[in-house]
Amino acid sequence: MHDDTICALATPPGISAIAMVRLSGPEALSIADKVFVAKDGGGALAERQANTIHYGNIIENDTAIDEVMVSIFRNPHSYTGEDTIEISCHGSPYIQDQLLQVLIRAGACMAKPGEFTQRAFLNGKMDLSRAEAVADLIESNSASSHRLAMQHIKGGFAKDIQALREQLVNFASLVELELDFSEEDVEFANRDELTRLLNKISTSLEALTDSFSIGNVIKNGVPVTIAGAPNVGKSTLMNALLNEDRAIVSEIPGTTRDYLEDNLIIDGMLFRFADTAGIRKAGDSIEQQGISKTMEKMEQSQLILYLFDAGNEDKASVLRALQDINKAGNTTVIAVLNKMDLNPGDEVRTRFDGLENAVFISAKNSENIDGLKQVLVGLAAYKDLDSNQTVVTNARHYEALSRSLSAVQEVAASIEAQIGTELLAQHIKAALAHLGEITGEVTNDEILGNIFSRFCIGK
Amino acid sequence: MHDDTICALATPPGISAIAMVRLSGPEALSIADKVFVAKDGGGALAERQANTIHYGNIIENDTAIDEVMVSIFRNPHSYTGEDTIEISCHGSPYIQDQLLQVLIRAGACMAKPGEFTQRAFLNGKMDLSRAEAVADLIESNSASSHRLAMQHIKGGFAKDIQALREQLVNFASLVELELDFSEEDVEFANRDELTRLLNKISTSLEALTDSFSIGNVIKNGVPVTIAGAPNVGKSTLMNALLNEDRAIVSEIPGTTRDYLEDNLIIDGMLFRFADTAGIRKAGDSIEQQGISKTMEKMEQSQLILYLFDAGNEDKASVLRALQDINKAGNTTVIAVLNKMDLNPGDEVRTRFDGLENAVFISAKNSENIDGLKQVLVGLAAYKDLDSNQTVVTNARHYEALSRSLSAVQEVAASIEAQIGTELLAQHIKAALAHLGEITGEVTNDEILGNIFSRFCIGK
Repeated sequence: MHDDTICALATPPGISAIAMVRLSGPEALSIADKVFVAKDGGGALAERQANTIHYGNIIENDTAIDEVMVSIFRNPHSYTGEDTIEISCHGSPYIQDQLLQVLIRAGACMAKPGEFTQRAFLNGKMDLSRAEAVADLIESNSASSHRLAMQHIKGGFAKDIQALREQLVNFASLVELELDFSEEDVEFANRDELTRLLNKISTSLEALTDSFSIGNVIKNGVPVTIAGAPNVGKSTLMNALLNEDRAIVSEIPGTTRDYLEDNLIIDGMLFRFADTAGIRKAGDSIEQQGISKTMEKMEQSQLILYLFDAGNEDKASVLRALQDINKAGNTTVIAVLNKMDLNPGDEVRTRFDGLENAVFISAKNSENIDGLKQVLVGLAAYKDLDSNQTVVTNARHYEALSRSLSAVQEVAASIEAQIGTELLAQHIKAALAHLGEITGEVTNDEILGNIFSRFCIGK
Repeated sequence: MHDDTICALATPPGISAIAMVRLSGPEALSIADKVFVAKDGGGALAERQANTIHYGNIIENDTAIDEVMVSIFRNPHSYTGEDTIEISCHGSPYIQDQLLQVLIRAGACMAKPGEFTQRAFLNGKMDLSRAEAVADLIESNSASSHRLAMQHIKGGFAKDIQALREQLVNFASLVELELDFSEEDVEFANRDELTRLLNKISTSLEALTDSFSIGNVIKNGVPVTIAGAPNVGKSTLMNALLNEDRAIVSEIPGTTRDYLEDNLIIDGMLFRFADTAGIRKAGDSIEQQGISKTMEKMEQSQLILYLFDAGNEDKASVLRALQDINKAGNTTVIAVLNKMDLNPGDEVRTRFDGLENAVFISAKNSENIDGLKQVLVGLAAYKDLDSNQTVVTNARHYEALSRSLSAVQEVAASIEAQIGTELLAQHIKAALAHLGEITGEVTNDEILGNIFSRFCIGK
């Protein structure tokens, strides 16, 4: 438990109907009592029941700062696990500022970013991966990222890891015991059982690390590159998809020199579109830089919308163009035949018979843009994700899981190699430490600092 | 009482620790019960006590939207006077959006701007001037504007007006009675008493309308123009005052062509500074426009900081320059002798002996900027304002008060002119209507619409 009582604005800065200032720590009630005068004339907040709300004034030196509602939460039944006071005041930045100053003069100190959640973690109210899910939940911006964050908040994979880790702890103590009796050459830890446990842990960890590529895509969006020769309508398509004039459109080939990115949610899935410079023999060095960036973007994409002027192409020319592009192994390319407004009738379509993943559109007239969106949704990597599958979305977890996996595999390898008990004990300890980092059983100030400094103040 | 139940986000949009959604109306509890599942497994919110807080999940179709805290307020003991639910959720724009959608599907409708406060007014929880003070309080950005808004929220001048209006209503009914007995030529309303009351009302109204010029300055800031010849350091002074590089500074005369405005709070008072184009024979037409704007700004200012290069001037030349400027009757000009860094020693100062309101500074080195600020505070119109004096800050109140004043004076004049009872009754009715607009006893949809549409949504 902390000695000091912290305060911070918990709602966004700015003008609004209501703002909330939070106060947490052993002195939360007594500090609030110094500045709050209830309208009901009743006793101090410290005498009142938990989970109740009280109307009154914040007063300092006979000057009323604001009329407020005060909510009381008591240790341990609060977010932080400490006594907590929430003060709902009028949403004026001036008042928020004054209120915090009054609280600080009454004995509180300003909370650091994430300090409320850090205290919740340190007071055992939530494990570390749950605390991190709080930050993910706040940042969630699509149905998918929201669902994953909610799943992690409910407990998520940390529980499973914790159970497996506990079994490994048992083995660790048996191995330690062997070290104490090293002169007698006994084997308390059954090596076959230990190997079976290690395999089980490895399988779990592998499933989790594998899920990160999906988790990352859910959190940050499916990367989609819009590419193609100059003047085939890439920026017009970007605008049609986003339904706004985001990219500068002109008839001069090479208008988009850098690339533009924007996000779009389709059917609850987040897509991150990049509109790129047209690919052609470059006119100047600035444009050449744009084309290199386009190639780079395509390699990082999961989906490429490769645009063609339908009137100028046929199946063979499209296939030739697609051969030239850089793409990573799991990238899918969609051939988008644009400018269908200039090519009415079926004649043009038949030229592309048999072309896989081909979509006919008119970006200019927004024709079949919905069809194209449905193709995107159909091809997005995580569309078939089981809603109960655990997905890792956090880069820190991914790293800790990967390190744990290597450490566990190393333990397994060292058993197979029949290395000495002392070395085995060391490997197990390393694996335990890495696994503990995920759930927060093993932490250090640096890890905590990294995690909670990402939070906003007031959280 | 309204039939429908409204909901809105009450905290500012954006990412934060906590956001609050408010729900008010006859179905607030039942709608909340459709979507909220308490963690304690207890009964419906509708069965629970007022002014209590409950922890649980917002759930729709078995999908949890968020873990939330729900506060219950019951008619009439709530802000709006209706049953009200406040839902504190995680501060994610996605969740806020989802939560509002879930509430709307459960039967709520989106609140219009200011609708919560409008309901509070219509349900008799606050008079109109108090409702307006809520908006002023939220927008208050200095100690002075905050103090005035708090004063108005406590009741302010509306109570006094209301008391005077009630006395006038008594007279009005007596005059109406005279009309009923018009054939008998009796006088129920004592004309001398009525005249005394009208004088009393006029005196009150005059004091209030007179206070508006101060009120306006408190709310919007004391207008200060920084003027002077080109290249005397006006933009440098603006930056020194604001302590940041706000204006573009260069050594080329005429750099500031338009004017820049910024606010600064000194000793709890708000000042609105305008940095203007230098005054000289204009080099081109764009600059000429800048100089016209400078003249206009000076006329609207309460204080003018007229800057001089101290090394190039003496008392006579400064006085000549000050003669040329446009200023309204109550404007005060401060002669600011700048560039004292280039003129050390007392020799230069003696050249200005006897010059009123003169301040020596070096804007470049921020020398004596604090001294200049103290001079500004000393000269600001409302420095001696009695903290109990009622000050009108609202333009609508000012207009209603002015109209009431004319109407009351007209009644007084018509008594003196001994006009017929019928006409007198009409004049009194008009005066009552205007007075009623201030407190909200007489309102129409247009007035209400104007007032509450200025509010933010959720208030």
